[in-house]
Amino acid sequence: MESTKLTFNEYPFLKELGLHENNLGVYHSGTWSGSGEEAVSLNPANNKPIAKIKMGTKAEYEACIKAMEAEKIKWMKTPGPIRGEVIRQIGEAFRRKKEALGLLISLEMGKIKSEGLGEVQEYIDICDFATGLSRTLEGKVLPSERPGHFMMEQWNPLGLVGCITAFNFPIAVAGWNAAIALICGDLMIWKPSPTTNLCAIATQKIINEVLDKFGFKSVHTLCCGGVDVGTAMVNDKRIPLISFTGSTAVGQKIAVDVAKRFGRTILELGGNNAAVIMEDADLDLALKACVFACVGTAGQRCTTMRRIFLHESVYDKFVEKMVAAYKTIQSGNPLQEGVLLGPLHTKDAVRQY
Amino acid sequence: MESTKLTFNEYPFLKELGLHENNLGVYHSGTWSGSGEEAVSLNPANNKPIAKIKMGTKAEYEACIKAMEAEKIKWMKTPGPIRGEVIRQIGEAFRRKKEALGLLISLEMGKIKSEGLGEVQEYIDICDFATGLSRTLEGKVLPSERPGHFMMEQWNPLGLVGCITAFNFPIAVAGWNAAIALICGDLMIWKPSPTTNLCAIATQKIINEVLDKFGFKSVHTLCCGGVDVGTAMVNDKRIPLISFTGSTAVGQKIAVDVAKRFGRTILELGGNNAAVIMEDADLDLALKACVFACVGTAGQRCTTMRRIFLHESVYDKFVEKMVAAYKTIQSGNPLQEGVLLGPLHTKDAVRQY
Amino acid sequence: MESTKLTFNEYPFLKELGLHENNLGVYHSGTWSGSGEEAVSLNPANNKPIAKIKMGTKAEYEACIKAMEAEKIKWMKTPGPIRGEVIRQIGEAFRRKKEALGLLISLEMGKIKSEGLGEVQEYIDICDFATGLSRTLEGKVLPSERPGHFMMEQWNPLGLVGCITAFNFPIAVAGWNAAIALICGDLMIWKPSPTTNLCAIATQKIINEVLDKFGFKSVHTLCCGGVDVGTAMVNDKRIPLISFTGSTAVGQKIAVDVAKRFGRTILELGGNNAAVIMEDADLDLALKACVFACVGTAGQRCTTMRRIFLHESVYDKFVEKMVAAYKTIQSGNPLQEGVLLGPLHTKDAVRQY
Amino acid sequence: MESTKLTFNEYPFLKELGLHENNLGVYHSGTWSGSGEEAVSLNPANNKPIAKIKMGTKAEYEACIKAMEAEKIKWMKTPGPIRGEVIRQIGEAFRRKKEALGLLISLEMGKIKSEGLGEVQEYIDICDFATGLSRTLEGKVLPSERPGHFMMEQWNPLGLVGCITAFNFPIAVAGWNAAIALICGDLMIWKPSPTTNLCAIATQKIINEVLDKFGFKSVHTLCCGGVDVGTAMVNDKRIPLISFTGSTAVGQKIAVDVAKRFGRTILELGGNNAAVIMEDADLDLALKACVFACVGTAGQRCTTMRRIFLHESVYDKFVEKMVAAYKTIQSGNPLQEGVLLGPLHTKDAVRQY
Repeated sequence: MESTKLTFNEYPFLKELGLHENNLGVYHSGTWSGSGEEAVSLNPANNKPIAKIKMGTKAEYEACIKAMEAEKIKWMKTPGPIRGEVIRQIGEAFRRKKEALGLLISLEMGKIKSEGLGEVQEYIDICDFATGLSRTLEGKVLPSERPGHFMMEQWNPLGLVGCITAFNFPIAVAGWNAAIALICGDLMIWKPSPTTNLCAIATQKIINEVLDKFGFKSVHTLCCGGVDVGTAMVNDKRIPLISFTGSTAVGQKIAVDVAKRFGRTILELGGNNAAVIMEDADLDLALKACVFACVGTAGQRCTTMRRIFLHESVYDKFVEKMVAAYKTIQSGNPLQEGVLLGPLHTKDAVRQY
Repeated sequence: MESTKLTFNEYPFLKELGLHENNLGVYHSGTWSGSGEEAVSLNPANNKPIAKIKMGTKAEYEACIKAMEAEKIKWMKTPGPIRGEVIRQIGEAFRRKKEALGLLISLEMGKIKSEGLGEVQEYIDICDFATGLSRTLEGKVLPSERPGHFMMEQWNPLGLVGCITAFNFPIAVAGWNAAIALICGDLMIWKPSPTTNLCAIATQKIINEVLDKFGFKSVHTLCCGGVDVGTAMVNDKRIPLISFTGSTAVGQKIAVDVAKRFGRTILELGGNNAAVIMEDADLDLALKACVFACVGTAGQRCTTMRRIFLHESVYDKFVEKMVAAYKTIQSGNPLQEGVLLGPLHTKDAVRQY
Repeated sequence: MESTKLTFNEYPFLKELGLHENNLGVYHSGTWSGSGEEAVSLNPANNKPIAKIKMGTKAEYEACIKAMEAEKIKWMKTPGPIRGEVIRQIGEAFRRKKEALGLLISLEMGKIKSEGLGEVQEYIDICDFATGLSRTLEGKVLPSERPGHFMMEQWNPLGLVGCITAFNFPIAVAGWNAAIALICGDLMIWKPSPTTNLCAIATQKIINEVLDKFGFKSVHTLCCGGVDVGTAMVNDKRIPLISFTGSTAVGQKIAVDVAKRFGRTILELGGNNAAVIMEDADLDLALKACVFACVGTAGQRCTTMRRIFLHESVYDKFVEKMVAAYKTIQSGNPLQEGVLLGPLHTKDAVRQY
Repeated sequence: MESTKLTFNEYPFLKELGLHENNLGVYHSGTWSGSGEEAVSLNPANNKPIAKIKMGTKAEYEACIKAMEAEKIKWMKTPGPIRGEVIRQIGEAFRRKKEALGLLISLEMGKIKSEGLGEVQEYIDICDFATGLSRTLEGKVLPSERPGHFMMEQWNPLGLVGCITAFNFPIAVAGWNAAIALICGDLMIWKPSPTTNLCAIATQKIINEVLDKFGFKSVHTLCCGGVDVGTAMVNDKRIPLISFTGSTAVGQKIAVDVAKRFGRTILELGGNNAAVIMEDADLDLALKACVFACVGTAGQRCTTMRRIFLHESVYDKFVEKMVAAYKTIQSGNPLQEGVLLGPLHTKDAVRQY
């Protein structure tokens, strides 16, 4: 049986991120709540509980949306370059918390530390990119057939964007969506994977620092929750765009549900990747690429390599190199320096494997 | 001594193009004139005179510009897609005269027939391209820092464009300039090379067919002439853009003269091209490319190859192939089927060579 | 009871378009077929039959797709500018048949002659536009984080596009889709409205003229048919993009069906348009706009005006003007000069109205 | 006679910017030098000397260029997004010194404090903009006529850019040029106005902070100097692009000199601006706009308003308002709170006025 004693205090970076032993998983209107089920965040490296999270109910989801609707016009009318400044400062806020947040990702998701830090860097990079977009997102002025007229194209915000993310990238994908949604004048509600709630809460807190300063309370909201929250979001006519990352089966169902209400989807689903190694390949380069593609994130990426097609003339040599390479890979606690292969994310994942 | 008897009647395609034994070299306002020097167009393949051209004076140049200034606003205000339709029909008009005009280029300039036809095709292609631009030439709508505002960029015509072209491409370069100038709402005055006046007059007549139909008389004008006309154009403040094709020395002088009056230039000057043949090159492919690059237009292009750098390991083999290839090239009258190498354009060119 | 005698011979332009008293409604692979139900095309102005059409079966639909799959690679690999030349010539072919095709649209659909001709002009314009795109459809070369690398974006064709059109624009919408699909390297199968088959067949024949010349037999195919053909198309995994014009209810169902197979849709569905006339409006300008918006295509457009909001201070005056204007509108046979309001398209439409 | 006692110590922000009573005006290769004339920076509000600057000689200019040539390849090959990170950090460095640098601009140039701060903000904004460009500066992938080919456009750096700026915007214009040059992979040498050397030196020091950290010593160099340095730069074939801000007469000469060597220019020269006040104008809005346009930067901007065209019906009223408004404008020491109109920049300017 698992120990139920929280290991929260073993990880000082958690406090730095504003987390507690008991956390609330819903944010909007400048306040935190959580009256749904209690989730326990587990460290996949040792299955010990880290902290607890009170997740959101459908009513709390509804409150998020109401709050966003109320703040919608104010954000949509904020000039692009001002929104750019908000997002630039969000990027700065992530820079300040990069180490702590990277460690949390590693702790809660199980990927190795350099990957955890890399994920925060992706959030930072997309903020810089979006800042640039704030002055370059352009419509067109086009010639018209009518004398004395021209045609003009101007891009307006959609309004609300719903973002549902997966466990394997607990914050990067949310960042890609949030930075682009916000720079376009959209507001985003985020439902993270139920097994990486701490990452999501810490991320929301970093964003809040900046949004608070500019007087925005519900431009980026969070609703940790289960299938009920996700289902409400997918079927919500007030959300014209749903961005989902996850399994192909769920993605297909979401595509249908959102199409039914004339909404739009961004779907980031499963992958099926192979490498082809030709007879004149640079085997050392190919080896590095293949090992990284197989072992990275413990094989839990959509871009993970599943198969290698080897030309018969290099087959033996390459297999030998691959086996040798695998022997050198240190597996274990992903927070530990030198470890290259962390745990699978859940017991279920181990079972399926 | 050269024969002075005109050979005009030997070439029936000249009449098809609306040319005569004696031609006027200035067009504007729907009428032709020519009170300057008389030029004689020579066939470089046999140095026999083809036809005569009365070129323009500075006063006639001035009349062209006055006529363009008078028609300027009407053309600039014509909607882009309507200008597109004008240019599309100009392309069609060139399609109908392609064979005759291609033969004239070959006759008067000296390039082989397939090159002459190719030049007309370039004119046609740029007309199609410009037609497409007529609905896609776009400005931008950009976000502003000020609430409730946006920034708008709209492209307006410059007005008059002056185009001075060289003998080696008697119509294609003028076409590139004309099609883009006209689609942008600009008007163009053209001073062709004094040795390819017939090509220019025939081209103007084809364009006139279409411009007449739409009621435009000076959107595209022609002023055959010498250095005095060219100089007047270069120093004319009413022409914000000068496009010049020719020697580097003249281009440099034009660059300075136009800069002095805060005008702009497009300069297409001399080239200096080499090929590098490596030891693993496909020698047959390289051979074809080199022969074409050396022999095309009798070596009178800006893109003509001047030097070949050969790796020592392929030197002998390649030189041998090149010599053999040159032996197969038939030189002679460029209008004649099978001839690949026509004459140099003038006696002067021969002397310099 | 309706007369069953075909009035085909009363309209000489039908023969000019290659139509007959009995027509086949399926085209692919250079041949026409039709082994499904027999449809009778009616003149909505007098309910008399014009000609008969043998529509396609599901098996014939399947043959269309097979033929397109077989020709797919050849078309996709045809260079963009060559595809542009094909489409330019299609535009020219429509120019030659503009009068006849415009009359057919008016006859079979019921819109007035100037609207019928306008629809052909739209087809022509989009061909010119697509020709321009053939040299400007661009990907991007983007900076990479990795030294010595860059990122490149290239747009590849999707493959097959399915296009289902409505009765109210029997050819224009198909043209918008076809020109853009073809220039992008896609092939298009078209299922027209079952009540405007003759327009579709005539259009396909005009296109064939050009495609035949370039040796393409199934780049643009036609499958007249009913719900069974439409359903097969919507659910066909070989067609990644379905473009549908029609009712909102059917569009919604198609959105769902195509989403289910991860396909994409372009939906052009119902509209609901109003005008607001303020107290300082130019009433004569407003009147013209409103009358045209209400009466055009006998109110059967997606852009037809349904309601007018009048400021009380102009209410009486505007209503009076509107009533007076309506009295001057001549209704009747749409082919007849002077008629501004043609019939509704079907008896059903009359009943519903 | 002017006092010669330096007032350096009265302004503590000067030390914060790394300035001294005696400064060197040339920077490259990580070191400062200055062996030319000694310039004295004057406070235009009281004509008292602030500090001294040893300006550069032609030999020192040459050393700058040599150093830039030596570092050129390294910077040009630095990936765009890395250059973007450098520029982002430069923006951050300016944020940290915004107050001090804004005060220096006000002190040395004479514009009021809010304008001084505004100029620093312009530098910061352009850095954010350039950071965004670092991932979006794009070439094109275009369709080719040749089967199996495509055309690719990639933008390469020019190399060295020379920037000559005017006294009225001592740092903003340099910033616009530097940020765009650097993000494009170009290196910039800057010759500031001889009367605002301290601003330039302080700016270079802020930039150096960041460039040093990334190991670049001559990507952005400074050569304070007189006409000899400017002339050398304008005629230097190693500098393909000269950006000049200043008088129309000098700009015209530069345009010619640079054209002579086939270089390119960006010229920001004199303006001549007027306002037209119509009879239905909102006079209060017009008043604000006109006062600001006349008084800002003490009328020393290229965008300064020179004339107002008033409709006769508003003439009296507007003149009255304007006179009343001018009476409320506090002139005096630009560093002082409440002052809206600072001094002209030099005694010469006063004399000319």
